[in-house]
Amino acid sequence: MMWKVLLVALSMAVNLSSGGFPYVEPTEGDVWPRPQMMQQEETYMLVRPGTFRFSVTGEDCDILQEALQRYTGAMLRSTSYRNRESSWRRSEDFNGYLDTVSVNLMKPCEDYPHQDMDEQYEIKIDSPDQPASGTITAQSIWGILRGLESFSQLLIPDGLEYRVKSTQIQDFPRFSFRGFMLDTARHYLPLRKIFENLDLMAMNKFNVFHWHLVDDQSFPYESAVFPDLSKEGSFSPIHIYTGENISDVVEYARLRGIRVLPEFDTPGHTKAWGPGQPGLLTTCYEDEKPDGTYGPIDPTKEENYDFLRSLLTEVTDRFHDHYIHLGGDEVDFDCWKSNQNITEFMKKMNFTGDYSKLESFYITKLIELVSHLPTENGYLVWQEVFDNGVDVADDTIIHIWKNRTLPEVWKEELKKVTQAGYKTVLSSCWYLNDISYGQDWKKYYECDPQDFDGTEDQKTLVMGGEACMWGEYVDGTNLIPRTWPRASVVAEKLWSSAAHTNSTSAAVPRLEEHRCRLLDRGHRVEPLWPSYCMSDVDL
Amino acid sequence: MMWKVLLVALSMAVNLSSGGFPYVEPTEGDVWPRPQMMQQEETYMLVRPGTFRFSVTGEDCDILQEALQRYTGAMLRSTSYRNRESSWRRSEDFNGYLDTVSVNLMKPCEDYPHQDMDEQYEIKIDSPDQPASGTITAQSIWGILRGLESFSQLLIPDGLEYRVKSTQIQDFPRFSFRGFMLDTARHYLPLRKIFENLDLMAMNKFNVFHWHLVDDQSFPYESAVFPDLSKEGSFSPIHIYTGENISDVVEYARLRGIRVLPEFDTPGHTKAWGPGQPGLLTTCYEDEKPDGTYGPIDPTKEENYDFLRSLLTEVTDRFHDHYIHLGGDEVDFDCWKSNQNITEFMKKMNFTGDYSKLESFYITKLIELVSHLPTENGYLVWQEVFDNGVDVADDTIIHIWKNRTLPEVWKEELKKVTQAGYKTVLSSCWYLNDISYGQDWKKYYECDPQDFDGTEDQKTLVMGGEACMWGEYVDGTNLIPRTWPRASVVAEKLWSSAAHTNSTSAAVPRLEEHRCRLLDRGHRVEPLWPSYCMSDVDL
Repeated sequence: MMWKVLLVALSMAVNLSSGGFPYVEPTEGDVWPRPQMMQQEETYMLVRPGTFRFSVTGEDCDILQEALQRYTGAMLRSTSYRNRESSWRRSEDFNGYLDTVSVNLMKPCEDYPHQDMDEQYEIKIDSPDQPASGTITAQSIWGILRGLESFSQLLIPDGLEYRVKSTQIQDFPRFSFRGFMLDTARHYLPLRKIFENLDLMAMNKFNVFHWHLVDDQSFPYESAVFPDLSKEGSFSPIHIYTGENISDVVEYARLRGIRVLPEFDTPGHTKAWGPGQPGLLTTCYEDEKPDGTYGPIDPTKEENYDFLRSLLTEVTDRFHDHYIHLGGDEVDFDCWKSNQNITEFMKKMNFTGDYSKLESFYITKLIELVSHLPTENGYLVWQEVFDNGVDVADDTIIHIWKNRTLPEVWKEELKKVTQAGYKTVLSSCWYLNDISYGQDWKKYYECDPQDFDGTEDQKTLVMGGEACMWGEYVDGTNLIPRTWPRASVVAEKLWSSAAHTNSTSAAVPRLEEHRCRLLDRGHRVEPLWPSYCMSDVDL
Repeated sequence: MMWKVLLVALSMAVNLSSGGFPYVEPTEGDVWPRPQMMQQEETYMLVRPGTFRFSVTGEDCDILQEALQRYTGAMLRSTSYRNRESSWRRSEDFNGYLDTVSVNLMKPCEDYPHQDMDEQYEIKIDSPDQPASGTITAQSIWGILRGLESFSQLLIPDGLEYRVKSTQIQDFPRFSFRGFMLDTARHYLPLRKIFENLDLMAMNKFNVFHWHLVDDQSFPYESAVFPDLSKEGSFSPIHIYTGENISDVVEYARLRGIRVLPEFDTPGHTKAWGPGQPGLLTTCYEDEKPDGTYGPIDPTKEENYDFLRSLLTEVTDRFHDHYIHLGGDEVDFDCWKSNQNITEFMKKMNFTGDYSKLESFYITKLIELVSHLPTENGYLVWQEVFDNGVDVADDTIIHIWKNRTLPEVWKEELKKVTQAGYKTVLSSCWYLNDISYGQDWKKYYECDPQDFDGTEDQKTLVMGGEACMWGEYVDGTNLIPRTWPRASVVAEKLWSSAAHTNSTSAAVPRLEEHRCRLLDRGHRVEPLWPSYCMSDVDL
């Protein structure tokens, strides 16, 4: 068709960002995030939905069986390109039908994904050493999951069948911590949206769901030990997550190779904890009388540490991950300053006037307590804990989030944290809630968590990064379109090699295909530039 | 419940925008946009879904019948407050059951809404002069439609029934032009989303749907006279609007008292017109050879005006409104400059070197042509046409859109345009596509189109305003949440009195109720601050 030829010609002539006629020609059957090594030929095989199946040739387990079922469904129900005629069938590049793909898991399954999990995998479709056949091979179940996702992305709808180019992939992640954070305190997020978001995370090879469960605005986590917390602190009796809900989320994530990292942010960001646990928060005073408001957790009361120990024992048991996120950001000292008990305690402790010492006192006790939970957890903390000089355990991960518009400042922080020998995760450049008009995805793609002044040893302490979607302006109405495919851009930076992710213009046609793929799979992911997908007419 | 009391107390103590615990207590049964005069008592009546009906006591027509059916459905299916117990039934303020509301249309229906339509209405529920009964009265069907919307908003779910406070409303719009613009060229919008958006417009008393149909990126409008335009210029054969689709949209809007104002923007913004109408666009040259690209419509060719006459004859016939939007913004002169034919034509016309004269020559001919169409249309043009000094007809509406971040500049433009005696519509402060982090709705609420230095006569030339949602980053995935309730804020500025809309903090509790109401009615409208609605758990 005439329009097509012209569109392509113009898209090459015109810079996408400068306006004009910015139609983007998508790639076909490319993989997002980009594999470390991928080689494709013009020859291809055809997958017929009626006869295609996976064949398990190595180890097996529930995670694998559920994944095979899921991917058979997801791959073979694309609605895209529905008006397209079958085109390649009779070409001389046709190398036969791909009716089986062998799935070769070489080691027994692990139960839960973890920080050191092996995600490496290999795909061969009609390769020189194994012509006319297909295999996905990995040492671990987590690698198989990543490989299945990649394989599903190789399929190009072609009439009622699917083309797969002759392909070899050897792939592994650049970073072991590839996180995405949701905030369910500023707004409640329905479970259905959390599940959908986990699906999308899996399609983008994220492996950590950081769940910022509670905050000043609400406490939706329903505790069995302290049921009053959500009874008094949630928005309403139906705006909660029960113990069963939590288990369902952890299981849903586990089956997709995603860890669930709960955050119970203290001592600040806790206003909604107060009503359900009287005495926990600091009473604020004005003119020597309580003014009816409350501040951070009162660090002077020993019973508050007992409470935290009991609560976190339950939490770490429910969430299964070795790590828990303890927060520690943005502690407001005003209320502590107004409270006479606090002042006296600080005098006794020789802290007088230095409230960050009081904060450190609290965090130190909290960390000590967490280290001695039955599950012996490790933890993440927001960067303030490091900035304040708190003595944390060796395997602590410092979560850098500040100075979002000043790269030189967070680069300096990366340098300091790793100089001190701590592991770290970067979020400063990936606050997806900071929306703006235009192609902000480019700035996410241009951020590299190892791009700071430090030794090789320091660089290896960077475990990865995390995209954050804070919830002040986000609930079930806009979570999915606002997050995706903007988070996909971060996902590729965290999985793919630095050398493969240094050009936004090279990413454009691949991102165009990926966005349409996510849409085809039924997710309302928003556009990144003027364009179209065949399935957007059905929205 | 404890949490509720606490939340209310804190929301009063804390400034919403400064963080803290910003739960907002919504109003109950308030109307958005705010009526010119509304008086409510604590006494109330109860509406029982099983027995309630409207009774037509004046004129009748299809628009009225369809509206009564629609509102009976919309009002009585709210899912909100579902856990709430019936509370007021036995109170001494109970004034009986409201089983019938009389709908008294005093003049016969008009077929189509129009610029001078009468939208005034009156509502009396259990008023002193008509106790224990309800009436909606208006001179025109358009007033009845606005009144039905307001009445539906008075209903407060109460167990399985609805409370309505004793209420008197006398209402009419501040501005006669209350527009909302969608762009279906940068992305295609499914018809379903256009209908949903019209529903939301009606709930917010917008009365003009400005449809920016075509642009550089695509030409989805299917013309019967020139079918090649969409055949060659649409994104794909399924990304189009057929003649029947257009009729359906016009009819859907008509039934809701909304005009559909089509825009066919020329001579720039027309790249997608080119493939389907060879010779229409200016051929661009480089080194005295055509470089394969095209510029604005070629204003030197007489046959191009014949083409436009035929196309616009069809368009004005299909859309029925007296007005058509002719565009005229952002004409790029580079291509004209490169073309020798153009240069010669300009020499002949004595325009040499002054390309805005050539632009004016084109626009003058276009306007002349539109004025002599069978439907004798009036028109809107973007402000550049006025800025370039083109001689336009007296009833032309100048659409101001530039200098969005510089109020002093668009205020100066308002002054100049009205000084010249032209009618005008303001969009500069209401470009909803310009998203940002935070509560941008406040800045929309603080914009007033009559707030400029001019005489009373000049102020009356301001017909109103229009919220624009340009489509570069918007398609069916994110249109509804990104637009609403941000557009609701503009709607209130355009309907309600200046004195009633000068405080964002007074608007907050009413906007909170309105947002939850739109959500309850099934629309995915996004949150404006940390909060919740009972129905957001079902998203």
